Amino acid sequence: MPELRHDPIQKRWVIIASERGRKPYDSSLSSEIQAGGFCPFCEGHEGKTPPEITAIRHNGSGPNQPGWQVRVVPNKFPALRIEGGLDRRGEGIHDRMNGVGAHEVIIETPQHDLNLADMPVEQIEKVIWIYRARLADLHRDGRFRYVLIFKNHGQAAGASLPHPHTQLIATPVTPKIISGELWSAREHYHDKERCLFCDLIQQELERGERLILADDRFVALAPFASRFPFEVFLAPRHHYHSFAKLSDEMIHPLAVALKDVLLRIKKCLRDPAYNFVIHTAPNTEAAPRRSAYWDTIEADFHWHIEIMPRLTRVAGFEWGTGFYINPTSPEEAAKYLREVAL
Amino acid sequence: MPELRHDPIQKRWVIIASERGRKPYDSSLSSEIQAGGFCPFCEGHEGKTPPEITAIRHNGSGPNQPGWQVRVVPNKFPALRIEGGLDRRGEGIHDRMNGVGAHEVIIETPQHDLNLADMPVEQIEKVIWIYRARLADLHRDGRFRYVLIFKNHGQAAGASLPHPHTQLIATPVTPKIISGELWSAREHYHDKERCLFCDLIQQELERGERLILADDRFVALAPFASRFPFEVFLAPRHHYHSFAKLSDEMIHPLAVALKDVLLRIKKCLRDPAYNFVIHTAPNTEAAPRRSAYWDTIEADFHWHIEIMPRLTRVAGFEWGTGFYINPTSPEEAAKYLREVAL
Repeated sequence: MPELRHDPIQKRWVIIASERGRKPYDSSLSSEIQAGGFCPFCEGHEGKTPPEITAIRHNGSGPNQPGWQVRVVPNKFPALRIEGGLDRRGEGIHDRMNGVGAHEVIIETPQHDLNLADMPVEQIEKVIWIYRARLADLHRDGRFRYVLIFKNHGQAAGASLPHPHTQLIATPVTPKIISGELWSAREHYHDKERCLFCDLIQQELERGERLILADDRFVALAPFASRFPFEVFLAPRHHYHSFAKLSDEMIHPLAVALKDVLLRIKKCLRDPAYNFVIHTAPNTEAAPRRSAYWDTIEADFHWHIEIMPRLTRVAGFEWGTGFYINPTSPEEAAKYLREVAL
Repeated sequence: MPELRHDPIQKRWVIIASERGRKPYDSSLSSEIQAGGFCPFCEGHEGKTPPEITAIRHNGSGPNQPGWQVRVVPNKFPALRIEGGLDRRGEGIHDRMNGVGAHEVIIETPQHDLNLADMPVEQIEKVIWIYRARLADLHRDGRFRYVLIFKNHGQAAGASLPHPHTQLIATPVTPKIISGELWSAREHYHDKERCLFCDLIQQELERGERLILADDRFVALAPFASRFPFEVFLAPRHHYHSFAKLSDEMIHPLAVALKDVLLRIKKCLRDPAYNFVIHTAPNTEAAPRRSAYWDTIEADFHWHIEIMPRLTRVAGFEWGTGFYINPTSPEEAAKYLREVAL
């Protein structure tokens, strides 16, 4: 059983998911299904994944059969387990609980080598539709404080299978970087009664130098203090706190904006490995006793997607300090991304 | 001029050190001297580095000449610049200051391929002696809030030159992970009037299952909530807040303990790439107006070294959340490291 453990120095939760029978020098992270010649995500190989959770099918085909367009399955090597209670316990200075959670794979297309950036907008809409549906569904489970949707594209970004897919992890704790953002947003709101992200977007729209794209629904920009070269922040232009509550009419413009940004990154940086992560409001249905904590969440938080091309190695300095060195200014990155021919 | 920029969402400082004339797809981090057939760190090549800051020489040789045992030079491609004032300024929601700081390279030996783990204890003592001397010297500069000493060993850990070396960065801000630790330590001390790290070390000595080594001066253990497989925490067994104030009689036992841990990692994991970072108290001489902030620092903080073998890829999940998945339990890692034949 995996375990969640709390670091009393960093005040950070870590998933300890021991896999038995490995040699110590063979410790590569295999939280995804292992690579090989055979692809378990391809159409016709439905039997090689755990039974599907949901899928988009328009041809009347049954579950775990060919004929799907987007398919969601449990991760075959999950970092967290869906069954059981949390069983929180202390051990002197340390805290632990059972590694309860969900770990799912969203297979974005039946086509083995069609990158998200190159999919038709209608296909990306289906992927987004599934993201929203999984978020909303997992928010009904009161054990899960946070649902994290993230994509690893390319080996350098941690993908172990090339078939386009996104992952999702639902956890009983709010991850540290997310709770840092939640606190900043709350503090700003309590000071000013304005959303921190709305203020930031407004300022960037006025200055323009870090802007990559802006239409009436979405804005993409190179963050002022980007940690990585060509990092992109993509968010709704107006205030929305939760991706789970994305309205139907936002799905098409989001698919257009996401495709645009991913294509710009692909062209500009020669199809680099990248990660993206959706930062959305936590599950306010979980932990009802703490609900006062979220009293302004609808007004203070603003969902967004962080896209991080993997161009630089992260060394000891970054790991040991949380302090990053970025060799490309965000203004320069935004200019390249704005001006690249699509 | 490099710049320090503050992220208003993450409340984190980032170094933006643009290098001109690079193509966007060629954005590899070249903060260290570039690799090649020729090694600028070897004895006899002293003219190929910037002029030395200090060195240990026992044979009466002059600066920038052969005959040294440990040599400190400025990084040829520094992430921060030593000259000038901070010039702090705001820009709406954003904050920036000049990228003022020191970025030095400590060349640990004249021998090109003698790993730190394999050096005689006397040589490691000299390296530690230099760490302490550089820390103490840079603490005399009131602009520098924090001096970070870190080592990247192997390409996967970000080293671009194989010749054994450590780096040092002095910054005008306290890095986020360090300030998180400082706050935790302070909170614990204010609650209990005991050092958080002393409490943790005591508990681990009693339980034993995560212990790697313990003598009367130093203790090494696998942290309860290790982020990475085979992560090691090495600290003085008794309370000392600052590496800069390391007493002479601690240098030999530290060299012995560090060599022991590095050798265990090398043998157990087949000479993996690794990073280590020294976490010490910040420069209490800097920013005198904030000195009340550090009123209990000597009692509440406890210096330590974090050693992180680079065995796993870090993917989107980790970047986007600060939430780590570790596939090797610390108890299992400690057992392997304790039992390996040296």
